[in-house]
Amino acid sequence: MRAAVMRNSQLVVDTVPDPKPGEGEVLVKTLACGICGSDLHALKHADKMVEVARETGAPFLLDLKRDVVMGHEFCAEVVEYGANTGGPARPGDRVVSMPVLFRGGRIEGVGYSNEAPGGYGELMTLSAALVLPVPNGLATEHAALTEPMAVGLHAVNKARLEPVDAPLVIGCGPVGLAVIAALKLKGVEPIVAADFSPLRRGLAEKMGAHVVVDPRERAAFAVFAEATNMRPAVVFECVGVPGLLHQIMREAPVGARVVIVGVCMEDDVIKPMLGINKELAVQFVLGYSPEEFAQTLQDIAEGRIDVAPTITGRVGIGGVPGAFEALGKPDAHAKILVEPGRPSS
Amino acid sequence: MRAAVMRNSQLVVDTVPDPKPGEGEVLVKTLACGICGSDLHALKHADKMVEVARETGAPFLLDLKRDVVMGHEFCAEVVEYGANTGGPARPGDRVVSMPVLFRGGRIEGVGYSNEAPGGYGELMTLSAALVLPVPNGLATEHAALTEPMAVGLHAVNKARLEPVDAPLVIGCGPVGLAVIAALKLKGVEPIVAADFSPLRRGLAEKMGAHVVVDPRERAAFAVFAEATNMRPAVVFECVGVPGLLHQIMREAPVGARVVIVGVCMEDDVIKPMLGINKELAVQFVLGYSPEEFAQTLQDIAEGRIDVAPTITGRVGIGGVPGAFEALGKPDAHAKILVEPGRPSS
Repeated sequence: MRAAVMRNSQLVVDTVPDPKPGEGEVLVKTLACGICGSDLHALKHADKMVEVARETGAPFLLDLKRDVVMGHEFCAEVVEYGANTGGPARPGDRVVSMPVLFRGGRIEGVGYSNEAPGGYGELMTLSAALVLPVPNGLATEHAALTEPMAVGLHAVNKARLEPVDAPLVIGCGPVGLAVIAALKLKGVEPIVAADFSPLRRGLAEKMGAHVVVDPRERAAFAVFAEATNMRPAVVFECVGVPGLLHQIMREAPVGARVVIVGVCMEDDVIKPMLGINKELAVQFVLGYSPEEFAQTLQDIAEGRIDVAPTITGRVGIGGVPGAFEALGKPDAHAKILVEPGRPSS
Repeated sequence: MRAAVMRNSQLVVDTVPDPKPGEGEVLVKTLACGICGSDLHALKHADKMVEVARETGAPFLLDLKRDVVMGHEFCAEVVEYGANTGGPARPGDRVVSMPVLFRGGRIEGVGYSNEAPGGYGELMTLSAALVLPVPNGLATEHAALTEPMAVGLHAVNKARLEPVDAPLVIGCGPVGLAVIAALKLKGVEPIVAADFSPLRRGLAEKMGAHVVVDPRERAAFAVFAEATNMRPAVVFECVGVPGLLHQIMREAPVGARVVIVGVCMEDDVIKPMLGINKELAVQFVLGYSPEEFAQTLQDIAEGRIDVAPTITGRVGIGGVPGAFEALGKPDAHAKILVEPGRPSS
C-alpha cells in the first residue's frame, strides 16, 4: 500500500507491505485521518518518546530502525475480517476506533507501532472488538475527529470542575479546541482561552470560548481574573512545550489547578517553590476511556459538537510531509486531514 | 537580646536589638524552638527563596543585607502586651502561635523577616490575636512542635485520601514524621515509609508507620505494592531535593498522586511524559490553616500525637550553628530544639 512513513526521523512517501488481519482483527481502508500535534512531536523527538516509554514500562515500544506509519485519528471503511471474526460493521461500512490493536497478547498503538500502521497509509488493521460504526449520515471527515475530541472530553472529566471553578485554556490548537468544546458541552461559563494566533483565537470562539486573549497584548491570567471575577482557576495546558508549565506556575493565582493536556516530550524545568507558595496542583492526563470515545462519536453525530471549523486543510498521502511542515506554523492551520483516496497535492 | 542570626548567608551568634511590641502585639520570651529543615534550605538558598517570593508576589520579602533571626516552631512565655492590647494569656503564661505577625498593614513571617525575629533569639513579638495558651501540663518542648506537626496534618488533609488509597511517605525527617503522625491519627492503614537512615526509620515506626523501607535494600514502590496489594498510591514527598520528583514520577504506579510537602528551593527537572503516560497528579502544599494549627496543639496536648520520639537534641543559642551542621547528616538527628534559657553547648 501507499503510505507516509516515518523512517530515520524523516517522513517519506513509499510503498510498504499491506497489513493483514489476523483473528479478532478487521482490515480497513483509510478514508480520512487527522494529523495530530503529537505526531509532529514524535517525528522530532522519537528517541525521547521511546526512552520514556521504556522507563514507564509502556505496553508497546517502537523500533525506530524499522518503518512506522503514523496516524491515529481516523475514519475508515471495512474491507474484510480476519479468520473466525465478525462485528457490527459489514464490508463497505464506515467505522471509527480507538487506535489500539490487541495482537498476540500485546497491545499495539495504531500509528505508534511497527506492527499496526496508522491512517497515513491506505490500509490498517484494527481490533474488531473496538470498532464503532459511524452513525448514519455523519460526514467521514467529522467522524475522523472523534479521537482528538475525545481527548478534550477526558481532560475536562479529569479536571473534576466544581461549580465555582472557571477554566483558562492555554493554547487553541486542536487539543485546546477539543477542551473548549468539552467545556461548552458541560455548560461551563465563562471559558477563557489564550493563543498567539488570530486564526486559532477565532476557532476558539467558534468552538465555544467566551473570552479570547492574545498573550502578546494582555496577560492571560489578568484577563481571566477580570472575566471570572477571580473564581478558582483550572488551567488547561494545551501546548506541550518546555517552559510553559513554569510560566503557568509563575503566573497562576493561589490554589490554581493545572491540567496538562499538551504533550511535552522534552525535559522540563520547574521551580517547585512557585508550586509550594501557591499550593498549586498539576494533573497530567492521557487519552480517554472507551466510554468517552463512544460518547464523543455520539456528541459529534448528534450535532452537540461541531468539528467542522477545526478542519483547515486536506491532503492526499503525498501531501503528508508538506502538511507536517505547514502545521509547524500555527497561524496557518488547526487540523489537516489526510485523505488517502485524494489525488496528492 | 542574644540570637543566632543569619547574616551574609552565615549563622552567627550575636547581640541584636530587642523587639518591641506595638499595638495588637505581644512580647514573648522564647522557651523552646525547633530547627526546621526549611531553615537549613533557607540558609543555603536564601537568594533563591527571595527571588521566588518576589516572583509569586509573596506578602513579605526578606532583605538579605539585613539580619534575619530565623526560628518559627516555638513555645514562648508572655512578657508584656503592646499598647491597648490584651489576650487570653497573661504575663508568665506559655503560648504557641502560627509564625505570622500582622504589622502596619503588612504580613511578616516570624523567623523569615527582617522585622519579626524568630525563636533562635531570646525575644519575639507575636500577633496577640494568633496566640494560643498552652493547655495545662503540656511540656514546653512538646508544645513547640505544634507548628511542624500541623504541616503534616495539612498535607494529609490536602491529599483528600479516599478509603481505597494507601500512603507512601518518602523521607522520614521531621516533615515525614509529621505526615505519618497525621495519617495514623486518621486511622489510615497501612502506612509505608521510606528513608535511608535507620534512626529515622525507627522514628517512623514509633510515629505510626506499619512498614518501613530502606531504599538501598529494596525499591520503596515495590514494598508499597506488596504491602498494600497495589492500592492506589498517594505519595508524600517529604525531602525537598532536586531530582526526587523525577524519581517518584519514574517509579510511581499509574494514577498515583504525589503530595509535595518537602521544600525544594532549587530548580528541578521533570520528564512530563512520565506524568502523562501514567496520568500522575502532583499537589504542592504549604503550611496549615489556623484551625489545623489549633487542632494539632490539642492533639498533642491530649496525647493523640506523641512528639517525644522526634526530639533528638537540645542546644542553647550558642549551639545553633553547630546544630545546623549536625542536621545536615540525617543519620544523627530528627528534631533539635533551641532553648535560649539553656547554657550554650
